[in-house]
Amino acid sequence: MQRKKAVVDAKIESAKTSKGLILIHTGIGKGKSTAAFGLLARALGHGMKAAVVQFVKSRSDSGEEAFFRNAPNLNWHVMGDGFTWETQNPEQDLATARKAWELVCGYLHDETVNLLILDEFTYALKYGWVTIEEVTAALNSRPTMQHVVITGRAAPPALIELADTVSEANLVKHAFQAGVQAMPGIEW
Amino acid sequence: MQRKKAVVDAKIESAKTSKGLILIHTGIGKGKSTAAFGLLARALGHGMKAAVVQFVKSRSDSGEEAFFRNAPNLNWHVMGDGFTWETQNPEQDLATARKAWELVCGYLHDETVNLLILDEFTYALKYGWVTIEEVTAALNSRPTMQHVVITGRAAPPALIELADTVSEANLVKHAFQAGVQAMPGIEW
Repeated sequence: MQRKKAVVDAKIESAKTSKGLILIHTGIGKGKSTAAFGLLARALGHGMKAAVVQFVKSRSDSGEEAFFRNAPNLNWHVMGDGFTWETQNPEQDLATARKAWELVCGYLHDETVNLLILDEFTYALKYGWVTIEEVTAALNSRPTMQHVVITGRAAPPALIELADTVSEANLVKHAFQAGVQAMPGIEW
Repeated sequence: MQRKKAVVDAKIESAKTSKGLILIHTGIGKGKSTAAFGLLARALGHGMKAAVVQFVKSRSDSGEEAFFRNAPNLNWHVMGDGFTWETQNPEQDLATARKAWELVCGYLHDETVNLLILDEFTYALKYGWVTIEEVTAALNSRPTMQHVVITGRAAPPALIELADTVSEANLVKHAFQAGVQAMPGIEW
């Protein structure tokens, strides 16, 4: 009994842990980037300082950027330029992604930043623009209380291993399938 | 060939459809309410008018409420009072939920509202505080261009049938499992 109680006590004790989390929103369903932006609103509402680095998106006319643009305590970076499927220029893609990653590394050394969002970052891993080794090293040496949110399809197993909370959005159905076009306020 | 082309053409034509969507974020993973709040930011950024009705949550100290509180074009209602698992008073739960549902019905008749978020609404169906029949009737008669987002675990099949886009958040892993407590900016 004493031993069992000790185990339970240890569990309760450990549940008091506070630390910076790595959260991943992956899967093919809708709601990955929006979940990150909802978390951003939540954190900013608590007076936390945050940064967003968008890896693939090149558009700056999104509703989220317009809405958050003037929020205090927030830096928002659109670092994508469309990438391969538009540019057809792998060297340019790599250079663009490395520039975005350098920016991220700066934030990963800044303990005043409480929440860092790497939107569509999984594609940077998929296309080999960053390696899992350098990402792991950079995330592991970040400030203790800094939260990092990563979004994008197909998060690789090594990234999931590294994360504290991972949510996979499954597509049950999508309006596209019924011929509804992308609309402002919904898709961007 | 002519017939095949006609089918493809019809598909392209239909993909130009714009309409108010019903979007559901369900499942046990993290990122349902935050996806709705991210969509809220997106819509507000496009100058759309929105309303949020929270069915179960009773706390008004959340980061999201603090952040969105003063946003223009938005009404935010915390309608829950903790419900059964705290109140142990089923009659009070029902009365509270019916009051929230009446509020929702008002918004479902207001064509100036472009986006309506029913946060944790699936529980109102689960506990029988509202019926799927009245919900279906009210949603089907809402303004043509009004988007409705519903969050909560275990969305019933009839609600999924009614929806245009459904995303199910699966829990791959959660920091709770490793003994990390709920933290501001992450869970509320």
